[in-house]
Amino acid sequence: MKQGSLDITALLLAYAQADPPEDVRAVMRLSLLDWAACGIAGHREGAFRPWADALTGQGPATRFDRAGAMVAEAALVNGTLSHALDYDDTHFAHIGHPSVAAVPAALAIAEATGASLAHMIDAALVGAEASIAVGLWLGRDHYEIGFHQTATAGAFGATVAASRLLALSDDQSAHALGLCSTMASGLKSQFGTMGKPLNAGLAARTGVEAALWAQAGMTSAADGLAEPLGFGATHHGAGADVPFAWRMGAVSHKFHACCHGLHAALEAVRDVELRAATAVVVHTHPRWMSVCNQMSPFTGLGAKFSYRHVLAMAAHDQDTGNIAAFSDDCAADPALVAWRDRVLVSADDSLTEMQARVVVDGVVHAHDLDAPLPLDMRQARIAAKARALVGARADEIAQAIADDDLTRFAQLLTS
Amino acid sequence: MKQGSLDITALLLAYAQADPPEDVRAVMRLSLLDWAACGIAGHREGAFRPWADALTGQGPATRFDRAGAMVAEAALVNGTLSHALDYDDTHFAHIGHPSVAAVPAALAIAEATGASLAHMIDAALVGAEASIAVGLWLGRDHYEIGFHQTATAGAFGATVAASRLLALSDDQSAHALGLCSTMASGLKSQFGTMGKPLNAGLAARTGVEAALWAQAGMTSAADGLAEPLGFGATHHGAGADVPFAWRMGAVSHKFHACCHGLHAALEAVRDVELRAATAVVVHTHPRWMSVCNQMSPFTGLGAKFSYRHVLAMAAHDQDTGNIAAFSDDCAADPALVAWRDRVLVSADDSLTEMQARVVVDGVVHAHDLDAPLPLDMRQARIAAKARALVGARADEIAQAIADDDLTRFAQLLTS
Repeated sequence: MKQGSLDITALLLAYAQADPPEDVRAVMRLSLLDWAACGIAGHREGAFRPWADALTGQGPATRFDRAGAMVAEAALVNGTLSHALDYDDTHFAHIGHPSVAAVPAALAIAEATGASLAHMIDAALVGAEASIAVGLWLGRDHYEIGFHQTATAGAFGATVAASRLLALSDDQSAHALGLCSTMASGLKSQFGTMGKPLNAGLAARTGVEAALWAQAGMTSAADGLAEPLGFGATHHGAGADVPFAWRMGAVSHKFHACCHGLHAALEAVRDVELRAATAVVVHTHPRWMSVCNQMSPFTGLGAKFSYRHVLAMAAHDQDTGNIAAFSDDCAADPALVAWRDRVLVSADDSLTEMQARVVVDGVVHAHDLDAPLPLDMRQARIAAKARALVGARADEIAQAIADDDLTRFAQLLTS
Repeated sequence: MKQGSLDITALLLAYAQADPPEDVRAVMRLSLLDWAACGIAGHREGAFRPWADALTGQGPATRFDRAGAMVAEAALVNGTLSHALDYDDTHFAHIGHPSVAAVPAALAIAEATGASLAHMIDAALVGAEASIAVGLWLGRDHYEIGFHQTATAGAFGATVAASRLLALSDDQSAHALGLCSTMASGLKSQFGTMGKPLNAGLAARTGVEAALWAQAGMTSAADGLAEPLGFGATHHGAGADVPFAWRMGAVSHKFHACCHGLHAALEAVRDVELRAATAVVVHTHPRWMSVCNQMSPFTGLGAKFSYRHVLAMAAHDQDTGNIAAFSDDCAADPALVAWRDRVLVSADDSLTEMQARVVVDGVVHAHDLDAPLPLDMRQARIAAKARALVGARADEIAQAIADDDLTRFAQLLTS
């Protein structure tokens, strides 16, 4: 651990108090709409219903499946359901999904405390920023060895979001972060199972509980992240220096219903006629080879982690932005299965994780997800995506956000 | 990870189904009485009350602070309160407190399912055995780097206990263990704070939730412990070969209200007149030097982790078996503070972790906690300890256990 890493707790306390710039807040409002649409669709999809039905606690919070829910369980259920389709936002600085941990924690505490939607958005935003900062502080070894940053870094972000809405003192917030240090968990080995969305829900709940329990007088390690036996040292953290900065302006929203590692390649060939191509070579960052390069997926879920299959879908005019397209039937479609053998995937460490280069019969098509999307274009694409996911309700949710109406926003989540 | 480690999940499934030998079951019955007395006293002590009061879920389970509680919260609260005084049982094979994770999980599920007390005891026992097995499988690096085996290995034990009472299939149990792999957490850096008892409660809750959620259809990594990105690989696990064996017969019960690492030294000088001694040298296993060798504690809690202070207490006829003796006043007592400078603590790797050698003015006194305590003597000392903790209720609890009366047992926990 480098010496600078000792400041991570102070950095998180700074986020908890910070006043977000309006341009970043505008992106967070879009993330909130995107999050709500993903969660409603995630609940409607149905796989998590028997599990959610078993969580019966009563309280002031709203879940995607019902109102009147217990605060901690609401964070758990909403975090899980909003990540169920793996269609929520992603930040590539640390590779994590910031909203699915920070937003459910902020929403549950906001409902419990009667906060405004605007305050809830600011809390979710500083929580998301905190999770990115922790992710950067932990570094890539943490992710490579097998920890799921969405869950681990996400729990700290959720803690910051909840601590802000509870107006905890710095001392209480430090205890909350210490409690989070001994509660945060989540492994990448869950990818491809229901455990992956659950990881997000657990992170959201950990944030809610750590903050509420610190408020109730629970004490913990004074510097739970950076101390010698703390979260960083035990969880393969690098302890990198992380400056205070606003990073959520650069968050990525998904416009394809599959692993984010596939998106640059899909965007690269967006206007390319692929069907008749005979040799397609995808060049991508080496990191993605172990994440989303399933050679021969045989389920819809597997297809979401396969360059070869999503390009076969694109070649056959299947809408990779449509969740329903990723079915088991699609994965088994003989035409697609045959076509995907035209695709070769190659690691290229001269590319960033946000870039892809797709060579179609010798012609190069490249895309960089880091190329900034102007706010109005981002807004239009998210609105279209939300409508595709939840229909006209998308516009009602956008209106509730514009109206700063937390009650209405929460009502619109139950489907 | 060694190849043999791939069998850890199969080993845990074997524990879930196993029929315990009667002599080990007899020790578990004593552990149950010891656990109940520690929990009642832990609740009465009061530090965790505001926290427990904030957990308001309703359900069929009993907590030390009330009946009619939510199952998962009961496991959380009871695990925490029963470890609050750090006076519960310890197993030195892996250095963990097996009962505070396995018993609360088994109790909560037993109340929810209407199981008998005898079935609850067997479930807690196989859960405790499973936690020891996981602790041995993870090995010492896991502990040394900073993970709290009571919490991490304990969560797997709690999962096995809960899975047995829910009569999960092997497939469901494997999913429960996979979910536990992505939920289990707990750091040693919490030692000396309320986070340490909380770790035990979290382990108990994780077991309950992992089993209930697997029953509700939640899926997870197929071999969450041993797979390449699984719990062992990510948490500094050695992946040792662990044979099936019954190890709870060798569990240690505490008869001094302080860290177990201090007990061999206290037993060694049990009949020695210390007050007038001028030079006391404690030889202990090197492991304990970072655990319970606080040189100058200034709180009652700190005193529980200090060779120098507990020997000063013994020298001044203060009962180290009495929880109330470990007060802040005691830690600050000028006579004891002055006396403890006569004590030198020295690491000696020729000793086991269970042994101590105390040299008092040149005379050697040694003790080995591994020397087996006959069952009747163990029973008598636990009964006496339980009476000291909770008075006559201790005998009522012992009777409820003898009567196989779960309802009565649970009623006696609320104080």
